[in-house]
Amino acid sequence: MSLRYALLALLTAEPLTGYDAAKRFGGSVGHVWHAPDSQIYPELRRMEREGLVEGEQVRWGPNSTKTRYSITGEGVRAFREWMSTPLDYAPVRDAAHMRAAYFEWTDPDSARECLERHIDHYTEQIAQWTTVRDAILDLSNATIARRVQKYPAEDHERIIAFKAFAYDGLIGRGEAEIAWARQGLELLDKLSPRN
Amino acid sequence: MSLRYALLALLTAEPLTGYDAAKRFGGSVGHVWHAPDSQIYPELRRMEREGLVEGEQVRWGPNSTKTRYSITGEGVRAFREWMSTPLDYAPVRDAAHMRAAYFEWTDPDSARECLERHIDHYTEQIAQWTTVRDAILDLSNATIARRVQKYPAEDHERIIAFKAFAYDGLIGRGEAEIAWARQGLELLDKLSPRN
Repeated sequence: MSLRYALLALLTAEPLTGYDAAKRFGGSVGHVWHAPDSQIYPELRRMEREGLVEGEQVRWGPNSTKTRYSITGEGVRAFREWMSTPLDYAPVRDAAHMRAAYFEWTDPDSARECLERHIDHYTEQIAQWTTVRDAILDLSNATIARRVQKYPAEDHERIIAFKAFAYDGLIGRGEAEIAWARQGLELLDKLSPRN
Repeated sequence: MSLRYALLALLTAEPLTGYDAAKRFGGSVGHVWHAPDSQIYPELRRMEREGLVEGEQVRWGPNSTKTRYSITGEGVRAFREWMSTPLDYAPVRDAAHMRAAYFEWTDPDSARECLERHIDHYTEQIAQWTTVRDAILDLSNATIARRVQKYPAEDHERIIAFKAFAYDGLIGRGEAEIAWARQGLELLDKLSPRN
Protein backbone atom coordinates (compact mmCIF):
# COMPACT_ATOMS: atom_id res chain seq x y z
CA MET A 1 0.00 0.00 0.00
CA SER A 2 2.89 2.40 0.63
CA LEU A 3 3.57 2.50 -3.12
CA ARG A 4 0.34 4.49 -3.46
CA TYR A 5 1.56 7.09 -0.97
CA ALA A 6 4.99 7.24 -2.57
CA LEU A 7 3.24 8.03 -5.88
CA LEU A 8 0.98 10.62 -4.27
CA ALA A 9 4.07 12.18 -2.62
CA LEU A 10 5.74 12.51 -6.04
CA LEU A 11 2.61 13.96 -7.60
CA THR A 12 2.34 16.68 -4.94
CA ALA A 13 5.39 18.22 -6.64
CA GLU A 14 4.15 18.06 -10.26
CA PRO A 15 2.08 16.02 -12.74
CA LEU A 16 3.89 12.97 -14.11
CA THR A 17 3.42 10.30 -16.75
CA GLY A 18 3.89 6.68 -15.64
CA TYR A 19 7.25 6.85 -17.39
CA ASP A 20 8.30 9.94 -15.39
CA ALA A 21 7.11 8.32 -12.17
CA ALA A 22 9.07 5.15 -12.90
CA LYS A 23 12.20 7.26 -13.49
CA ARG A 24 11.71 8.92 -10.08
CA PHE A 25 11.69 5.47 -8.51
CA GLY A 26 15.18 5.00 -9.93
CA GLY A 27 16.36 7.82 -7.62
CA SER A 28 14.40 10.30 -5.49
CA VAL A 29 11.61 8.47 -3.64
CA GLY A 30 13.01 5.16 -4.90
CA HIS A 31 15.75 5.51 -2.28
CA VAL A 32 13.21 5.07 0.49
CA TRP A 33 10.54 3.07 -1.33
CA HIS A 34 11.63 0.74 -4.09
CA ALA A 35 9.02 -0.28 -6.67
CA PRO A 36 9.42 -2.04 -10.02
CA ASP A 37 7.83 -0.44 -13.13
CA SER A 38 5.42 -3.39 -13.30
CA GLN A 39 3.76 -2.13 -10.09
CA ILE A 40 3.80 1.58 -10.88
CA TYR A 41 1.66 1.65 -14.04
CA PRO A 42 -1.22 -0.49 -12.71
CA GLU A 43 -1.22 1.40 -9.41
CA LEU A 44 -1.58 4.73 -11.24
CA ARG A 45 -4.53 3.31 -13.21
CA ARG A 46 -6.13 2.04 -9.99
CA MET A 47 -5.62 5.43 -8.37
CA GLU A 48 -7.25 7.09 -11.37
CA ARG A 49 -10.31 4.82 -11.04
CA GLU A 50 -10.48 5.73 -7.34
CA GLY A 51 -10.31 9.47 -8.12
CA LEU A 52 -6.97 10.11 -6.39
CA VAL A 53 -5.31 11.18 -9.63
CA GLU A 54 -6.58 12.49 -12.93
CA GLY A 55 -5.15 11.35 -16.27
CA GLU A 56 -4.77 13.63 -19.26
CA GLN A 57 -3.46 12.64 -22.71
CA VAL A 58 -0.27 14.46 -23.65
CA ARG A 59 1.67 14.31 -26.89
CA TRP A 60 4.63 11.89 -26.80
CA GLY A 61 6.83 11.91 -29.87
CA PRO A 62 5.35 12.76 -33.32
CA ASN A 63 2.51 10.18 -33.45
CA SER A 64 1.79 9.08 -29.97
CA THR A 65 0.33 10.19 -26.65
CA LYS A 66 0.85 9.25 -23.04
CA THR A 67 -1.26 9.69 -19.94
CA ARG A 68 0.00 12.34 -17.56
CA TYR A 69 -1.38 12.13 -14.05
CA SER A 70 -2.13 15.02 -11.69
CA ILE A 71 -3.06 14.62 -8.05
CA THR A 72 -6.72 15.53 -7.30
CA GLY A 73 -8.13 17.17 -4.17
CA GLU A 74 -9.18 13.67 -3.12
CA GLY A 75 -5.59 12.48 -3.63
CA VAL A 76 -4.21 15.30 -1.49
CA ARG A 77 -6.71 14.39 1.24
CA ALA A 78 -5.71 10.70 1.07
CA PHE A 79 -2.03 11.64 1.30
CA ARG A 80 -2.58 13.96 4.27
CA GLU A 81 -4.61 11.27 5.99
CA TRP A 82 -1.84 8.71 5.51
CA MET A 83 0.68 11.25 6.83
CA SER A 84 -1.15 11.39 10.17
CA THR A 85 -1.97 7.66 10.51
CA PRO A 86 0.35 5.63 12.78
CA LEU A 87 2.74 3.52 10.70
CA ASP A 88 2.75 -0.25 10.75
CA TYR A 89 6.29 -1.53 11.07
CA ALA A 90 7.14 -4.37 8.72
CA PRO A 91 8.70 -7.38 10.47
CA VAL A 92 12.43 -7.87 9.94
CA ARG A 93 13.58 -9.86 6.91
CA ASP A 94 17.31 -9.54 6.86
CA ALA A 95 19.39 -12.11 5.03
CA ALA A 96 22.75 -10.63 6.11
CA HIS A 97 21.98 -10.88 9.83
CA MET A 98 20.40 -14.29 9.37
CA ARG A 99 23.51 -15.52 7.65
CA ALA A 100 25.83 -14.07 10.30
CA ALA A 101 23.94 -16.02 12.96
CA TYR A 102 25.09 -19.26 11.28
CA PHE A 103 28.69 -18.39 10.38
CA GLU A 104 29.84 -21.67 11.95
CA TRP A 105 28.41 -23.29 8.79
CA THR A 106 30.95 -21.66 6.52
CA ASP A 107 34.71 -21.21 6.60
CA PRO A 108 36.15 -18.05 8.16
CA ASP A 109 37.20 -16.68 4.76
CA SER A 110 33.67 -16.91 3.37
CA ALA A 111 32.36 -15.27 6.50
CA ARG A 112 34.93 -12.46 6.11
CA GLU A 113 33.96 -12.03 2.47
CA CYS A 114 30.30 -11.77 3.42
CA LEU A 115 31.09 -9.00 5.92
CA GLU A 116 33.42 -7.21 3.52
CA ARG A 117 30.65 -7.20 0.91
CA HIS A 118 28.30 -5.84 3.55
CA ILE A 119 30.74 -2.98 4.14
CA ASP A 120 31.11 -2.40 0.37
CA HIS A 121 27.35 -2.45 -0.17
CA TYR A 122 26.66 0.14 2.53
CA THR A 123 29.68 2.26 1.61
CA GLU A 124 28.30 2.54 -1.92
CA GLN A 125 24.78 3.22 -0.68
CA ILE A 126 26.03 5.91 1.72
CA ALA A 127 27.90 7.58 -1.16
CA GLN A 128 24.68 7.64 -3.21
CA TRP A 129 22.51 8.87 -0.33
CA THR A 130 25.08 11.55 0.52
CA THR A 131 25.14 12.77 -3.09
CA VAL A 132 21.35 13.03 -3.15
CA ARG A 133 21.19 14.72 0.25
CA ASP A 134 23.78 17.29 -0.76
CA ALA A 135 21.93 18.01 -4.03
CA ILE A 136 18.75 18.54 -1.99
CA LEU A 137 20.51 20.93 0.38
CA ASP A 138 21.99 23.09 -2.40
CA LEU A 139 18.85 22.74 -4.60
CA SER A 140 20.80 21.27 -7.52
CA ASN A 141 18.30 18.35 -7.29
CA ALA A 142 15.77 19.24 -10.02
CA THR A 143 12.76 17.55 -8.38
CA ILE A 144 13.26 19.48 -5.15
CA ALA A 145 13.95 22.70 -7.01
CA ARG A 146 10.60 22.35 -8.82
CA ARG A 147 8.84 21.32 -5.61
CA VAL A 148 9.95 24.35 -3.58
CA GLN A 149 8.92 26.74 -6.38
CA LYS A 150 5.30 25.87 -5.54
CA TYR A 151 5.69 27.22 -2.00
CA PRO A 152 6.37 30.65 -0.51
CA ALA A 153 10.05 31.26 0.31
CA GLU A 154 9.51 30.94 4.06
CA ASP A 155 8.52 27.26 3.61
CA HIS A 156 11.61 26.27 1.62
CA GLU A 157 13.84 25.65 4.64
CA ARG A 158 11.37 23.14 6.16
CA ILE A 159 10.79 21.27 2.91
CA ILE A 160 14.49 20.93 2.23
CA ALA A 161 15.31 20.08 5.85
CA PHE A 162 12.79 17.19 5.96
CA LYS A 163 14.05 15.64 2.73
CA ALA A 164 17.65 15.88 3.90
CA PHE A 165 16.64 14.45 7.29
CA ALA A 166 15.17 11.34 5.62
CA TYR A 167 18.52 10.74 3.88
CA ASP A 168 20.40 11.37 7.13
CA GLY A 169 18.45 8.43 8.55
CA LEU A 170 19.46 6.12 5.71
CA ILE A 171 23.08 7.24 6.07
CA GLY A 172 23.03 6.67 9.84
CA ARG A 173 21.61 3.19 9.37
CA GLY A 174 24.25 2.41 6.74
CA GLU A 175 26.94 3.53 9.16
CA ALA A 176 25.52 1.22 11.83
CA GLU A 177 25.66 -1.68 9.34
CA ILE A 178 29.30 -0.94 8.56
CA ALA A 179 30.21 -0.69 12.26
CA TRP A 180 28.52 -4.05 12.83
CA ALA A 181 30.36 -5.74 9.97
CA ARG A 182 33.67 -4.36 11.29
CA GLN A 183 32.84 -5.80 14.70
CA GLY A 184 32.24 -9.14 12.94
CA LEU A 185 35.60 -9.03 11.19
CA GLU A 186 37.24 -8.50 14.58
CA LEU A 187 35.27 -11.40 16.02
CA LEU A 188 36.41 -13.67 13.18
CA ASP A 189 40.02 -12.63 13.72
CA LYS A 190 39.66 -13.47 17.39
CA LEU A 191 37.99 -16.86 16.81
CA SER A 192 40.00 -17.89 13.73
CA PRO A 193 43.24 -15.89 13.63
CA ARG A 194 44.57 -15.36 10.10
CA ASN A 195 47.96 -16.87 9.41
CA MET B 1 13.86 -17.83 -1.19
CA SER B 2 15.54 -16.94 2.13
CA LEU B 3 12.67 -18.64 3.97
CA ARG B 4 14.05 -21.92 2.72
CA TYR B 5 17.46 -21.20 4.24
CA ALA B 6 15.94 -19.97 7.48
CA LEU B 7 14.13 -23.34 7.71
CA LEU B 8 17.27 -25.29 6.86
CA ALA B 9 19.16 -23.27 9.50
CA LEU B 10 16.58 -24.26 12.13
CA LEU B 11 16.68 -27.90 11.07
CA THR B 12 20.46 -28.06 11.42
CA ALA B 13 19.82 -27.90 15.20
CA GLU B 14 17.10 -30.58 15.43
CA PRO B 15 14.16 -32.17 13.57
CA LEU B 16 10.96 -30.12 13.75
CA THR B 17 7.30 -30.43 12.83
CA GLY B 18 5.77 -27.57 10.82
CA TYR B 19 4.16 -26.48 14.07
CA ASP B 20 7.53 -26.40 15.89
CA ALA B 21 9.09 -24.49 12.98
CA ALA B 22 6.27 -21.94 12.99
CA LYS B 23 6.82 -21.41 16.74
CA ARG B 24 10.52 -20.74 16.10
CA PHE B 25 9.52 -18.01 13.64
CA GLY B 26 7.72 -16.35 16.55
CA GLY B 27 11.16 -15.86 18.21
CA SER B 28 14.60 -17.27 17.31
CA VAL B 29 15.14 -17.04 13.55
CA GLY B 30 11.89 -15.04 13.26
CA HIS B 31 13.81 -12.05 14.64
CA VAL B 32 15.95 -11.90 11.51
CA TRP B 33 13.58 -13.50 8.99
CA HIS B 34 9.87 -13.07 9.50
CA ALA B 35 7.56 -15.60 7.83
CA PRO B 36 3.84 -16.23 8.33
CA ASP B 37 2.67 -19.82 9.07
CA SER B 38 0.94 -19.85 5.68
CA GLN B 39 4.38 -19.83 3.98
CA ILE B 40 6.15 -22.24 6.33
CA TYR B 41 4.02 -25.39 5.82
CA PRO B 42 4.00 -25.34 1.99
CA GLU B 43 7.73 -24.55 1.89
CA LEU B 44 8.51 -27.59 4.08
CA ARG B 45 6.45 -29.78 1.74
CA ARG B 46 8.26 -28.35 -1.29
CA MET B 47 11.61 -28.95 0.38
CA GLU B 48 10.57 -32.54 1.10
CA ARG B 49 9.71 -33.08 -2.58
CA GLU B 50 13.14 -31.67 -3.50
CA GLY B 51 14.90 -33.98 -1.04
CA LEU B 52 16.24 -31.24 1.25
CA VAL B 53 14.28 -32.54 4.23
CA GLU B 54 12.74 -35.89 5.11
CA GLY B 55 9.32 -36.19 6.72
CA GLU B 56 8.45 -38.84 9.31
CA GLN B 57 5.04 -39.37 10.92
CA VAL B 58 5.13 -38.85 14.68
CA ARG B 59 2.33 -39.32 17.20
CA TRP B 60 0.50 -36.09 18.09
CA GLY B 61 -2.07 -36.41 20.86
CA PRO B 62 -3.96 -39.69 21.34
CA ASN B 63 -5.38 -40.19 17.82
CA SER B 64 -3.35 -38.14 15.47
CA THR B 65 0.05 -37.83 13.83
CA LYS B 66 2.13 -34.99 12.46
CA THR B 67 5.01 -34.85 10.03
CA ARG B 68 8.37 -34.17 11.64
CA TYR B 69 11.07 -32.98 9.25
CA SER B 70 14.80 -33.74 9.46
CA ILE B 71 17.42 -32.12 7.27
CA THR B 72 19.00 -34.52 4.73
CA GLY B 73 22.60 -34.58 3.47
CA GLU B 74 21.27 -32.78 0.39
CA GLY B 75 19.70 -30.14 2.64
CA VAL B 76 22.98 -29.61 4.50
CA ARG B 77 24.77 -29.19 1.16
CA ALA B 78 22.18 -26.67 -0.05
CA PHE B 79 22.52 -24.72 3.20
CA ARG B 80 26.32 -24.67 3.04
CA GLU B 81 26.16 -23.57 -0.57
CA TRP B 82 23.82 -20.69 0.30
CA MET B 83 26.17 -19.73 3.16
CA SER B 84 29.01 -19.13 0.69
CA THR B 85 26.98 -17.45 -2.09
CA PRO B 86 27.14 -13.62 -2.23
CA LEU B 87 23.94 -12.10 -0.85
CA ASP B 88 21.57 -10.04 -2.91
CA TYR B 89 20.60 -6.93 -1.03
CA ALA B 90 16.91 -6.14 -1.09
CA PRO B 91 16.15 -2.56 -2.16
CA VAL B 92 14.99 -0.21 0.59
CA ARG B 93 11.28 -0.06 1.40
CA ASP B 94 11.01 2.11 4.41
CA ALA B 95 7.74 3.83 5.21
CA ALA B 96 9.13 5.76 8.22
CA HIS B 97 11.89 7.45 6.22
CA MET B 98 9.55 8.03 3.30
CA ARG B 99 7.09 9.75 5.58
CA ALA B 100 9.78 11.87 7.23
CA ALA B 101 10.77 13.20 3.80
CA TYR B 102 7.29 14.76 3.49
CA PHE B 103 6.75 16.09 7.01
CA GLU B 104 5.73 19.47 5.56
CA TRP B 105 2.45 17.70 4.66
CA THR B 106 1.46 17.19 8.26
CA ASP B 107 1.37 19.39 11.35
CA PRO B 108 4.41 19.45 13.65
CA ASP B 109 2.57 17.51 16.37
CA SER B 110 1.76 14.61 14.02
CA ALA B 111 5.37 14.60 12.85
CA ARG B 112 6.56 14.52 16.48
CA GLU B 113 4.16 11.68 17.24
CA CYS B 114 5.48 9.74 14.27
CA LEU B 115 9.07 10.09 15.52
CA GLU B 116 8.09 9.29 19.11
CA ARG B 117 6.42 6.09 17.90
CA HIS B 118 9.59 5.31 15.95
CA ILE B 119 11.58 5.63 19.18
CA ASP B 120 9.05 3.49 21.07
CA HIS B 121 9.04 0.82 18.37
CA TYR B 122 12.81 0.45 18.34
CA THR B 123 13.12 0.75 22.13
CA GLU B 124 10.77 -2.21 22.43
CA GLN B 125 12.55 -4.16 19.70
CA ILE B 126 15.95 -3.51 21.30
CA ALA B 127 14.60 -4.78 24.64
CA GLN B 128 13.45 -8.01 22.93
CA TRP B 129 16.67 -8.47 20.96
CA THR B 130 18.75 -7.83 24.09
CA THR B 131 16.77 -10.43 26.05
CA VAL B 132 17.32 -13.02 23.32
CA ARG B 133 21.00 -12.16 22.96
CA ASP B 134 21.58 -12.46 26.71
CA ALA B 135 19.76 -15.83 26.80
CA ILE B 136 22.02 -17.01 23.97
CA LEU B 137 25.15 -15.88 25.80
CA ASP B 138 24.23 -17.64 29.07
CA LEU B 139 22.69 -20.67 27.26
CA SER B 140 19.30 -20.21 28.92
CA ASN B 141 17.90 -20.10 25.35
CA ALA B 142 16.66 -23.70 24.85
CA THR B 143 17.19 -23.80 21.06
CA ILE B 144 20.82 -22.74 21.38
CA ALA B 145 21.40 -25.07 24.33
CA ARG B 146 20.17 -28.01 22.19
CA ARG B 147 22.17 -26.82 19.19
CA VAL B 148 25.51 -26.62 21.00
CA GLN B 149 25.01 -30.13 22.48
CA LYS B 150 25.51 -31.50 18.97
CA TYR B 151 29.01 -30.03 18.79
CA PRO B 152 32.25 -30.63 20.68
CA ALA B 153 32.87 -28.19 23.52
CA GLU B 154 35.59 -26.28 21.65
CA ASP B 155 33.00 -25.17 19.04
CA HIS B 156 30.52 -23.76 21.54
CA GLU B 157 32.16 -20.34 21.84
CA ARG B 158 32.00 -19.72 18.07
CA ILE B 159 28.41 -20.87 17.70
CA ILE B 160 27.25 -18.70 20.58
CA ALA B 161 29.36 -15.73 19.49
CA PHE B 162 27.91 -15.72 15.95
CA LYS B 163 24.31 -15.85 17.16
CA ALA B 164 24.95 -13.03 19.65
CA PHE B 165 26.73 -11.05 16.92
CA ALA B 166 23.64 -11.22 14.68
CA TYR B 167 21.53 -9.73 17.50
CA ASP B 168 24.20 -7.08 18.15
CA GLY B 169 23.63 -5.96 14.57
CA LEU B 170 19.88 -5.63 15.05
CA ILE B 171 20.45 -3.73 18.29
CA GLY B 172 22.97 -1.38 16.63
CA ARG B 173 20.56 -0.66 13.81
CA GLY B 174 17.75 -0.02 16.31
CA GLU B 175 19.99 2.44 18.14
CA ALA B 176 20.73 4.25 14.87
CA GLU B 177 16.96 4.54 14.23
CA ILE B 178 16.42 6.03 17.69
CA ALA B 179 19.29 8.51 17.24
CA TRP B 180 17.79 9.56 13.91
CA ALA B 181 14.31 10.08 15.37
CA ARG B 182 15.81 12.17 18.21
CA GLN B 183 17.60 14.30 15.60
CA GLY B 184 14.19 14.74 13.92
CA LEU B 185 12.54 15.88 17.14
CA GLU B 186 15.28 18.50 17.53
CA LEU B 187 14.75 19.60 13.93
CA LEU B 188 11.01 19.99 14.53
CA ASP B 189 11.67 22.02 17.67
CA LYS B 190 13.98 24.27 15.69
CA LEU B 191 11.57 24.71 12.74
CA SER B 192 8.34 24.86 14.76
CA PRO B 193 9.16 25.79 18.37
CA ARG B 194 6.65 24.45 20.86
CA ASN B 195 4.77 27.05 22.88
